[in-house]
Amino acid sequence: MIRIVLVETSHPGNIGAAARAMKTMGVTRLALVNPRCEIGEEARARASGAGDVIANASMHQTLDEAVANCSLVIGASARLRSLPWPTAYPRDCVARIAELDSNAAVAVVFGPERSGLGNRDLERCDLLMHIPTDPAFSSLNLAAAVQLFCYELRLNRVPPVEPTISKDRLASADERARLYAHLESMLVAVEFLDPGNPRQVMRRIKRLCNRSALEAIEVNILRGILTAVEHRLRKST
Amino acid sequence: MIRIVLVETSHPGNIGAAARAMKTMGVTRLALVNPRCEIGEEARARASGAGDVIANASMHQTLDEAVANCSLVIGASARLRSLPWPTAYPRDCVARIAELDSNAAVAVVFGPERSGLGNRDLERCDLLMHIPTDPAFSSLNLAAAVQLFCYELRLNRVPPVEPTISKDRLASADERARLYAHLESMLVAVEFLDPGNPRQVMRRIKRLCNRSALEAIEVNILRGILTAVEHRLRKST
Repeated sequence: MIRIVLVETSHPGNIGAAARAMKTMGVTRLALVNPRCEIGEEARARASGAGDVIANASMHQTLDEAVANCSLVIGASARLRSLPWPTAYPRDCVARIAELDSNAAVAVVFGPERSGLGNRDLERCDLLMHIPTDPAFSSLNLAAAVQLFCYELRLNRVPPVEPTISKDRLASADERARLYAHLESMLVAVEFLDPGNPRQVMRRIKRLCNRSALEAIEVNILRGILTAVEHRLRKST
Repeated sequence: MIRIVLVETSHPGNIGAAARAMKTMGVTRLALVNPRCEIGEEARARASGAGDVIANASMHQTLDEAVANCSLVIGASARLRSLPWPTAYPRDCVARIAELDSNAAVAVVFGPERSGLGNRDLERCDLLMHIPTDPAFSSLNLAAAVQLFCYELRLNRVPPVEPTISKDRLASADERARLYAHLESMLVAVEFLDPGNPRQVMRRIKRLCNRSALEAIEVNILRGILTAVEHRLRKST
């Protein structure tokens, strides 16, 4: 029940890019208030495969009309105004949305490219969303701002776990101990390691292997290499 | 010491938009590997005020050359490959970067628009970055992907606190109690409240005011309104 509202957008390419940005994150409801451009070929080209978001967009004469049924209206604001108004980063805006009833209507409103939302429109918002750009260059593209909000919204909905690093079983302590013993005997055989003065070599190698979270299959590969070296050594002597 | 590396980019507009996306988040080092387009007027137009990022970009024949001195190479990957490779969301990639020495060089690599990074390039990466797009429409624009990473990087650097909601002092318990007493006497005067049968009216109003975290200045305004109503009532009787 989240809609993106674009107020008085000037560039059709931005409307297209915003539609694409929304759809990549699973947001499809777009409302356009008094756009200052034709929404034709250029918008559809930049929308890439998200032409349906534009085709289904609702058109409005005023912001009030576009947000009439919304329980929460969030307005994008580049600057922090003289009158302090409830303001949050995109992530905290999404947290606010997550507290609502799941069928509460929510609008996130973005103003014209050059000026952003005017004070009258900002005061219609319950909450302002501030994206922390570099103050030395805060010229965030309209579709980029839409992208960042929709990304935060999607992050809130997908599982917080990172994609799997590995599907293979980690090597057990015993498997690792046998790898170290195998390696140590090979290092002695090639006279890299002096059993009478081993210094820190094996300790450093164990620390490296522990940090690498070796998988069982990787231990097998490494032991296979050690065995191949041993075979070759036996042949050459 | 973070550089964005674009490999075999086809559209000059995307290079420009990526430069703008970077600069809004305070990232300025761009490396281009074998771009498949001229970097001219269109790139500079889409860069908006970030033409300097393009002008200062380094040019490379190979990815190896572009990342040669990097301690950590992160590759953007839309798909999760058959060989599980260390993979993380942008936020977790930034956490990995934050663990490094502050002068360690880091590269974040983005592949060609249509195909993304090929397997040979992905295997040059220490970590893959996966942006959790909607699987039904994962067509994220190149500059949008750059924008999302740079945003996460910046979020990690700015204070995590949200911009201030208000700079004014909250009303004290005493100030609020006097507001409630003032309001109650006015409600009795206008015969909205029956002192013999007050029901839940004042309790609900107190709950509303507590939830609103009234500021001292707001209490003054509300009490001024009550006083004005009282004056008007006295005149009219």
